[in-house]
Amino acid sequence: MTADASTPPVIVLVRPQLGENIGKAARAMLNFGLTEMRLVSPRDGWPNPAAGPAASGADVVLANARVFETVAEAVADCPHVYATTVRKRGVTKPVVTPEEAAVQMRGAHGRSAILFGPERSGLETDDVALARTILTVPINPEFGSLNLAQAVILVAYEWSKGEALASPPEVALDPPAPHEELEGMIGQLNAMLEQANFFFPPDRTPATLRTLRTLLTKPGWSSQEVRTLRGVLSALAGAKAKRSA
Amino acid sequence: MTADASTPPVIVLVRPQLGENIGKAARAMLNFGLTEMRLVSPRDGWPNPAAGPAASGADVVLANARVFETVAEAVADCPHVYATTVRKRGVTKPVVTPEEAAVQMRGAHGRSAILFGPERSGLETDDVALARTILTVPINPEFGSLNLAQAVILVAYEWSKGEALASPPEVALDPPAPHEELEGMIGQLNAMLEQANFFFPPDRTPATLRTLRTLLTKPGWSSQEVRTLRGVLSALAGAKAKRSA
Repeated sequence: MTADASTPPVIVLVRPQLGENIGKAARAMLNFGLTEMRLVSPRDGWPNPAAGPAASGADVVLANARVFETVAEAVADCPHVYATTVRKRGVTKPVVTPEEAAVQMRGAHGRSAILFGPERSGLETDDVALARTILTVPINPEFGSLNLAQAVILVAYEWSKGEALASPPEVALDPPAPHEELEGMIGQLNAMLEQANFFFPPDRTPATLRTLRTLLTKPGWSSQEVRTLRGVLSALAGAKAKRSA
Repeated sequence: MTADASTPPVIVLVRPQLGENIGKAARAMLNFGLTEMRLVSPRDGWPNPAAGPAASGADVVLANARVFETVAEAVADCPHVYATTVRKRGVTKPVVTPEEAAVQMRGAHGRSAILFGPERSGLETDDVALARTILTVPINPEFGSLNLAQAVILVAYEWSKGEALASPPEVALDPPAPHEELEGMIGQLNAMLEQANFFFPPDRTPATLRTLRTLLTKPGWSSQEVRTLRGVLSALAGAKAKRSA
């Protein structure tokens, strides 16, 4: 699925803790014209009675919020996934400011999703691994204390700035495949590697999986490219099956 | 009194109602490096015990806050006074966005002050009359619901952009591998695909090879990533060899 260049980003709250903060995030979004919220495993379930009052009238955002079990499911239809972090992390992904992200999102084909972590701890490494880009708010190095709704409002504010002026992208490159297609390919490869006893020793497996995911997320392959690669993997698996038959 | 061009603006809260909101405004300020708060006739007096907990550690801002009876006294030393309003008002003053205000303030001689009105009602006409410029946050015309701390944070955020304090982390991404390393990986894959009879029919082979090459060149994988992928390929080939043995 592709979408118009000006399709607003989806705000994904990953394991949010307090309903009040979900409401505040909704209010922050709607102030700047964002309406699509997705929730990944909200701690206290959903709907949450504390969200409505905190939304100060942004009920439409809460009413349309969709709940998912995993981050991967929440961003399945989004080719462009950003992970917000306040601090630099030891990851080898491009890091952009809210301003740069807004420019990218306006020029992008297909939906963008922006992940925000739980209030206390922020996104985990596995959440960040799903994103192609890190979104970091440049902040006072001696006092970084942005709350969830504040992080959301800064990102939404930057996005809204270009709305009247957004010009269509110059080159119609094939957009990156929706996330679920990439996920399917990664799953296929991992299964093959499992069979090949690639994951050894076992305690290194999570790190190895993350390394592979990062590496395969980096290209931003299109749907067509992902299909080609899945053909490659099937051929390799098929050859193996035939030979061992 | 003149000050350096980079003198940070003073945040002036005019007749703030809740101590909690004063604390939140302090927190918003310090996140983006602003430290000078002035209070005009805070409703519940000053200090206010509700402010500290809401400041989440931005105590230095509260401790140094100065209290004034009138707006005129609060901005007496400031040549540049901005009045924030969410909606455009029927006043004949220039109206700027937070972004434009930040540019002006950075280039200005002498201190800038930014007035924020009481939570419920905003600035009164007499307060606005003291300002030379109106600062308006462009907002969803169908849902304008910025609270005090949110208005402060957007203004502080824009101001901080021009400051060196907060440049985004320049992550030294690993450079793409030298071409011969990529070539080695492509050769390894192609040999495996040859064995797997992937290239069929034969007259399509050159196009298929080109497609694969394009797709594998796109990511700009680093040397380390190329080594990881060669390990993956070897594992898959090894599994095949073992099974066919």
